[in-house]
Amino acid sequence: MAKNRTWGVAVCPGDGIGPEVMAPTVAALQKVAAKEGLELRLQHYDWPAHAWHRDHGEMMPADWRAQLAEHDAILLGALGDPGPSSDPDRHLLPDGVSLAPLLALRKGFDLWACERPAVRLPGTPQYLADPRAEGLDMLVIRENSEGEYVAQGGRLAPGTAREVATQVEVFTRLGTERIIRHAFERASARAQARQAGERPPRTFPLPGGGEAAAQVCAITKRNAQAHWGEMWTEIFAEVAGDYPHIATHHELVDAACMKFVTRPWEFDVVVASNLHGDILTDLAAVLCGGMGVAPSCNINPLDRSVPPLFEPTHGSAPDIAGQGLAGPEAMLLTAAMMLDWMGEEDPAAARAGERLRLAVAADLQERDGEASGTRAVGDAVLARLDQL
Amino acid sequence: MAKNRTWGVAVCPGDGIGPEVMAPTVAALQKVAAKEGLELRLQHYDWPAHAWHRDHGEMMPADWRAQLAEHDAILLGALGDPGPSSDPDRHLLPDGVSLAPLLALRKGFDLWACERPAVRLPGTPQYLADPRAEGLDMLVIRENSEGEYVAQGGRLAPGTAREVATQVEVFTRLGTERIIRHAFERASARAQARQAGERPPRTFPLPGGGEAAAQVCAITKRNAQAHWGEMWTEIFAEVAGDYPHIATHHELVDAACMKFVTRPWEFDVVVASNLHGDILTDLAAVLCGGMGVAPSCNINPLDRSVPPLFEPTHGSAPDIAGQGLAGPEAMLLTAAMMLDWMGEEDPAAARAGERLRLAVAADLQERDGEASGTRAVGDAVLARLDQL
Ligand SMILES: CC(C)[C@H](C(=O)O)[C@@H](O)C(=O)O
Ligand SMILES: CC(C)[C@H](C(=O)O)[C@@H](O)C(=O)O
Repeated sequence: MAKNRTWGVAVCPGDGIGPEVMAPTVAALQKVAAKEGLELRLQHYDWPAHAWHRDHGEMMPADWRAQLAEHDAILLGALGDPGPSSDPDRHLLPDGVSLAPLLALRKGFDLWACERPAVRLPGTPQYLADPRAEGLDMLVIRENSEGEYVAQGGRLAPGTAREVATQVEVFTRLGTERIIRHAFERASARAQARQAGERPPRTFPLPGGGEAAAQVCAITKRNAQAHWGEMWTEIFAEVAGDYPHIATHHELVDAACMKFVTRPWEFDVVVASNLHGDILTDLAAVLCGGMGVAPSCNINPLDRSVPPLFEPTHGSAPDIAGQGLAGPEAMLLTAAMMLDWMGEEDPAAARAGERLRLAVAADLQERDGEASGTRAVGDAVLARLDQL
Repeated sequence: MAKNRTWGVAVCPGDGIGPEVMAPTVAALQKVAAKEGLELRLQHYDWPAHAWHRDHGEMMPADWRAQLAEHDAILLGALGDPGPSSDPDRHLLPDGVSLAPLLALRKGFDLWACERPAVRLPGTPQYLADPRAEGLDMLVIRENSEGEYVAQGGRLAPGTAREVATQVEVFTRLGTERIIRHAFERASARAQARQAGERPPRTFPLPGGGEAAAQVCAITKRNAQAHWGEMWTEIFAEVAGDYPHIATHHELVDAACMKFVTRPWEFDVVVASNLHGDILTDLAAVLCGGMGVAPSCNINPLDRSVPPLFEPTHGSAPDIAGQGLAGPEAMLLTAAMMLDWMGEEDPAAARAGERLRLAVAADLQERDGEASGTRAVGDAVLARLDQL
């Protein structure tokens, strides 16, 4: 692909602290782009957002898909609760409305892979007592397009004694195979990076003897949800056959959640369904310092013509919105993740992503857990971008 | 009800470490019963178990329900992987077969409430770094009879490119209402105990002003699974109306898992669906020292004529089975939980449960994390039962 192409980014600050953390992030993106010779074209949207809803009755315009499809990527601040608690208009929208655009964007662009890397940065909160949790380096890959979140089913006889609510989980072979294969691809890249000395080495025993440099762990609840659990298990085994150099493992979701707390350092790449992955990516984020520093992406690894969606894992935090208190680190690291994704084609973007992440990491390490407002962190990171 | 009644208990040691941890537990039960004047009639069963399966082709006899229904309670060791890894017969049974009796017993006796109290005992592993996690005192109540684990659905066109696996989640108003009401009942009892000075005091703000001495937190994923999420939310609000002195709260399951790690001390009673509860009870167990000390019960709070099922949260641990290494604490604490349940009718049982728990707690505290084999712990607890 052509170097020095221009990357169009739809910037959607969203609700609550979204606009606050987006402001320093846009400044950092502009600076890092200028320094690395990366061409970014940022276009702002005031939707999806509660404020837009108030004026238009919807979270997004009807042609949102066409408008966003013109960009290479979408950078979203936060959605959810509409505003700070001092705002008399807050809590007008139920979560199902204000958060619906997230699911609409993921499904509308078939962004079937959600990734939340779990690498600890020094200076972030450590919730676990065991010192081995310091070296954490796992990647949780969540199926993002089907499974438990297809919104099928309904309510029979609502409000009556015989009411029954059903929720249908739907898993396709195609959807399962592509997410599992993507996990093995990511694991292969990690194995390669470890063998090349670009990542700290790790080894996992292979069943036939010998050692692998990466592992994929599949999550199911096949002992209680056999239909899809067995299909996942079969497809996992089939795909694993194409990657004999990668170690494999299986955990039930309940055991996996426990082990994320008791010995997370044993995991490498983890692949899970929409709901299981929702939970495990949140837990993985906590292990790496929590919502304040957790970036996230929603991508379609097989189709780069649709814009991926980059959003911090955190929500709109209405309790602190409007006060300049929100740390912008998760948003900044999310922007760095977007630059990494561009960097798969564009070396300037790869350098920019690395520079931005280093600047955030250096600032976190220097402050060592000390909070500092949105503005101060943003300014400090901007200053560091010059020094690096 | 009559004092000094005889309590019949079906003792099912099960697989793996099950028989090992059951042996000292039976000894402790007999001793504590003798000391408190409690009449226990223990009857052993060699099913459900892998060994029984090998001889009969099933995990349990066809008339299991009738046989077990004659008892007041069922005490189960562990099910799952069939034996130690040195056993050439192991791994003969998939989890779906060897663990199926758990679901069959729960469903067969409509044991719709699963409780796993989360109270920290000094001397058990502490996985969290924050010292506030020491004072943990929550109760997670899991819906145990419907929801995500009804095993409905199937696989269309297995193995073909168009394969679809569906899993239907089914929630009834009746099942939802009874589990939520049970949570409020438990919370009321906690509030009362706190006000009576029998538990450390806690307060939670009430929406209309004033303070509650207990709280119930409902878990859903209503922003992505609206059908049952909204029904739960509505029923939760209705039932809460009957308990104006109890504070209420709601968390999405992903946020709840995070908060169990970042600030578990904020929770009191938590009520969740079958799958969410499966995950949250496991996490709660970890917060209290892990599987080695996590008791669990499956009860029908509205029908004491069916035998509840008491089982440690841990599995059969085939990797250490047959070596005398397994700690019997979780099994002993599970037996204490069974005595507590009997104690709701029989004061001798209540005293016996308290005595057994104190003996286990004292031994844990003295050893302070030092492991000691199955036998040594069992002997130490037996000795303490005399001293207390
Ligand atoms: C807001 C909600 C629908 C969303 C999800 O569950 O996917 C969020 O929890 C997330 O993880 O991004
Ligand atoms: C073995 C399995 C079916 C069971 C469950 O999920 O209920 C177990 O995980 C538990 O929590 O008791």
